[in-house]
Amino acid sequence: MIKVVKNIIDMQKISLEHKLKGDKIAVVPTMGFLHEGHLSLIRKAREFTESVVTTLFVNPSQFGPNEDYNRYPRNFERDLDLCNQAGSKYLFNPEVLDMYPKGFNTSIKISGVTDKFEGEFRPGHFDGVATVVAKLFNSTLPDYAVFGQKDYQQTLLIKKLTKDLNFPIEIVIAPTIREIDGLAMSSRNTYLDIEIRKKAGVLFYALNEARKIISEGETNRLRINTSLHKALRTIPEIKIDYAASALADTLDEPESFFPGDSVVILIAAYLGKTRLIDNEIVKIPYKLNEENFIIT
Amino acid sequence: MIKVVKNIIDMQKISLEHKLKGDKIAVVPTMGFLHEGHLSLIRKAREFTESVVTTLFVNPSQFGPNEDYNRYPRNFERDLDLCNQAGSKYLFNPEVLDMYPKGFNTSIKISGVTDKFEGEFRPGHFDGVATVVAKLFNSTLPDYAVFGQKDYQQTLLIKKLTKDLNFPIEIVIAPTIREIDGLAMSSRNTYLDIEIRKKAGVLFYALNEARKIISEGETNRLRINTSLHKALRTIPEIKIDYAASALADTLDEPESFFPGDSVVILIAAYLGKTRLIDNEIVKIPYKLNEENFIIT
Repeated sequence: MIKVVKNIIDMQKISLEHKLKGDKIAVVPTMGFLHEGHLSLIRKAREFTESVVTTLFVNPSQFGPNEDYNRYPRNFERDLDLCNQAGSKYLFNPEVLDMYPKGFNTSIKISGVTDKFEGEFRPGHFDGVATVVAKLFNSTLPDYAVFGQKDYQQTLLIKKLTKDLNFPIEIVIAPTIREIDGLAMSSRNTYLDIEIRKKAGVLFYALNEARKIISEGETNRLRINTSLHKALRTIPEIKIDYAASALADTLDEPESFFPGDSVVILIAAYLGKTRLIDNEIVKIPYKLNEENFIIT
Repeated sequence: MIKVVKNIIDMQKISLEHKLKGDKIAVVPTMGFLHEGHLSLIRKAREFTESVVTTLFVNPSQFGPNEDYNRYPRNFERDLDLCNQAGSKYLFNPEVLDMYPKGFNTSIKISGVTDKFEGEFRPGHFDGVATVVAKLFNSTLPDYAVFGQKDYQQTLLIKKLTKDLNFPIEIVIAPTIREIDGLAMSSRNTYLDIEIRKKAGVLFYALNEARKIISEGETNRLRINTSLHKALRTIPEIKIDYAASALADTLDEPESFFPGDSVVILIAAYLGKTRLIDNEIVKIPYKLNEENFIIT
């Protein structure tokens, strides 16, 4: 049966006891209101160890002043039950005032991969993420930490945080889990009203349109982006923050991509009042001549 | 015999092996060119555990562009020998390019205790310290970390870093070690030429003047500071960056201190071309009436 841990020091003690026994720890940081995407992360963590810690903390410092911190969906009992079923041994659920006591004054800033896209539209967001993830790492002391690819830029941030600050942790990125129409699972999908929800598959449709023209040989970045915008605009209720392609490792945006490049297609858009993000990674194909030799 | 560890991953493995055996780790971060002050920290660390890791890393990111990074004194063989004699089990000595590889992009900022005094005169210094200390903590994975009181504001920073980011580490502050004339030991003392060196006891003299008037009942902050400045100016070659008193925990600067307050007296001053810092903590005495009862 899953154990709920509220206190940071208690959590550290539990992790240290496991370590002393030679157990590995895997952590799955979440903001709760769990869906199949989160559960897939917990199951992935279970591939590494039985000592899985799911963290549930709606982190105020990663929300902007006009964002949805207060109305972010919460359901502790349901989360606990789902966590337990998915095989998490602990649910670490600290209080905001324990994480950010009076006089809290520390911020971690990671430049580069956070500058564009989400970083541009959500100023301060990634500082909040980096800082809370460092705190969650130190609270749970994991050997593995599992994050979902859906928050693609966040995965780059966390790999960088871990590398730059030398956390002795292996970062594992698990694939995005989607609804039948391709909508990436997200706790925020509950914000979508029925009529808008029916159209929310458009993000995945646009990602696939980009994937299609890339597979057909398109390498020009702006033409790929244009196909994304065109696909998204088939829905009148959409307001695009960005729909772009970039090198997957660096988020650099060259004029054209080259065969073998891993390219991430990134979308952030409002559907009605709800902001959704999604991404896919696409490999730029090698060109083959008539006898299927790679042309270099 | 002490073991030199250059590689970060190797250092983590060594610490994890000790932890698996139930050993505690104590780290003593230094920039090398060790003196009796550092050795006292290593000996203090030995009170907690046999597994003492001294780190030797002249951290470029805590030096300003016009500061003394390049000419900072270095003597690896002597440091190794002294470390060994003082009882350190490991000397962790990473290369700059391993600590800050190409693309390093992370910075930890701690506000509040770093804003004034050194923070004002050495912009960026404390971000560099906070970031490297987090890296050294994650590289050595200590249970205890020992720092010298001489860098007083740094000790506040490191306590805050540890608390705010939940590092499971106990921070130990050890007293300043002084030369016979009271000059606080510092690797930078080697910069002082013979004539200036003879006058360098003036910082300790000033600290004692402030201590004296406080013991005699002075509680007014500006009058305490004036006594500091007056004492320092007995040496014509001095250029004062700051000479100030503040509440020891917060560095707040009230008009007057109250009985029972812990007050830190802080000095930073150039003697010739060499910048020295020093500090002492003084308790504001309770006032006693003629029968030695505390007047409240």
